[in-house]
Amino acid sequence: VPELAYQNGKILPISEAMVSVEDRGYQFADAVYEVIMGSQGRPFALQKHLNRLHRSMSALDFPELSLDLVKEGILKVNEASEIPDSVIYLQVSRGNQVRSHLPEREMNPVLTITVRRADETPVRPLSPGVSAITVPDERWGRCDIKTVQLLPNAMAKTRAEKNGASDAIFLGPENVVREATSSNVFIVKDGVFYTHPLTPNILPGITREIFIQSQAKAGHEVVEEIFSVERLLGADEVFLTGTITRVLPITKVDDIPIGTGRPGPGAAAFLELLIEEIRTQK
Amino acid sequence: VPELAYQNGKILPISEAMVSVEDRGYQFADAVYEVIMGSQGRPFALQKHLNRLHRSMSALDFPELSLDLVKEGILKVNEASEIPDSVIYLQVSRGNQVRSHLPEREMNPVLTITVRRADETPVRPLSPGVSAITVPDERWGRCDIKTVQLLPNAMAKTRAEKNGASDAIFLGPENVVREATSSNVFIVKDGVFYTHPLTPNILPGITREIFIQSQAKAGHEVVEEIFSVERLLGADEVFLTGTITRVLPITKVDDIPIGTGRPGPGAAAFLELLIEEIRTQK
Repeated sequence: VPELAYQNGKILPISEAMVSVEDRGYQFADAVYEVIMGSQGRPFALQKHLNRLHRSMSALDFPELSLDLVKEGILKVNEASEIPDSVIYLQVSRGNQVRSHLPEREMNPVLTITVRRADETPVRPLSPGVSAITVPDERWGRCDIKTVQLLPNAMAKTRAEKNGASDAIFLGPENVVREATSSNVFIVKDGVFYTHPLTPNILPGITREIFIQSQAKAGHEVVEEIFSVERLLGADEVFLTGTITRVLPITKVDDIPIGTGRPGPGAAAFLELLIEEIRTQK
Repeated sequence: VPELAYQNGKILPISEAMVSVEDRGYQFADAVYEVIMGSQGRPFALQKHLNRLHRSMSALDFPELSLDLVKEGILKVNEASEIPDSVIYLQVSRGNQVRSHLPEREMNPVLTITVRRADETPVRPLSPGVSAITVPDERWGRCDIKTVQLLPNAMAKTRAEKNGASDAIFLGPENVVREATSSNVFIVKDGVFYTHPLTPNILPGITREIFIQSQAKAGHEVVEEIFSVERLLGADEVFLTGTITRVLPITKVDDIPIGTGRPGPGAAAFLELLIEEIRTQK
């Protein structure tokens, strides 16, 4: 079975999945997306992804698209792929029209889903840690909407690679730590977890949410507050979280070692919880 | 002859022009574009558009693409369309790859050109004027690169329409007037033209450049400086300039009439000069 795509209710090889050059996703980045982890042949945290997709589409005043149909498509193509550990990518654009900034009133959203093999199983152990650089956040003002306007993210990732680092962390005005190119940032100091609050400047990450909620259940508060790069550099631990990232310890930022320079117990606990959630998914 | 597209050296109906769902233009807005006016069957200011395309691609470290081939494609498809007054749209994406923020080292850029009939001939008289609203500029920090990250522009245009206006003017911090959703902004006060200087926050417009250069030749300086919305509201004239916009008087901003509330001599002189350039293009 080749890696597969889903379009208009049909399953086809990804290489045959095409869109019009007048798809607004192509000409205006007028499209939203989700990346879902398939584990044991099942999409993890599917309902949360569908809810966020709905939120993104509502924020942009997209035409209606049945979430049941989206869900059906995801399950169908993921099953057809026969890939146990998959990366499910799903994009919805506003639709096709003759190029004009102003969207037409009646449009048919274009849904595309692709399923590829994940590079690694999600239930593997914690990474020994990677390094990151910091970059000024030049993205637009609504990063809470999960749109395909990802060019600055790609540029920052490229810059990281050129500097021998694995990822880049976006800094807002006054060196506020926002998030990385495709994941949220957490720090740990004296046993307390901190992360940027939900504002228009960061993505409401699902892995972020799962951890905060489970900590709250256990009576531990994750502090959601603004902090600067100085606090990050002085933290005991720094790590990134995201659907594909899972939990990734950052042991060096801008060539400065973080804490002991090795992954810490906070990241390990986070990952343990996440793997338990993945293993026991309903 | 239907309206035509050009892809991979071939001419085809626009409805048949497709791109891969894994084109980075679709998944990352990793693409740049130009809109060229065809007049009397010839692309106006073609070399300036090609130069700007090259500048956009260089700024993003795109793989090489022969500008001669791009030029050949534009001329070929515009001629084949047999449309005297056309809108030529040209998009170059970085290329296709398995989805990853980091671009592959070796990529083949994807060039698409479409030609459509212009709504109106470019040599028509000055518009009686339209109204505009102002909106906070939430776009990314490199609007000088002509990328397809146009969702905030589309959102602002939609907001203008909902408010009964024709366009929206982006305001930066401290209410600085930047540009409109697809054109530059000029004001006239006491016979002097003012426009935003070239910074990462505005597009280096070709119509803007043509006017500034021709004024300089005639010994008249266009003042390129930052000004606030208060100065715009107190101006004698406000107008937009762009390839398709040409020169468009704005007679009302946020429901406040500008100057006499009618198009003024500055906009008329600008348009006269532009039409002369179009008529006498080499």
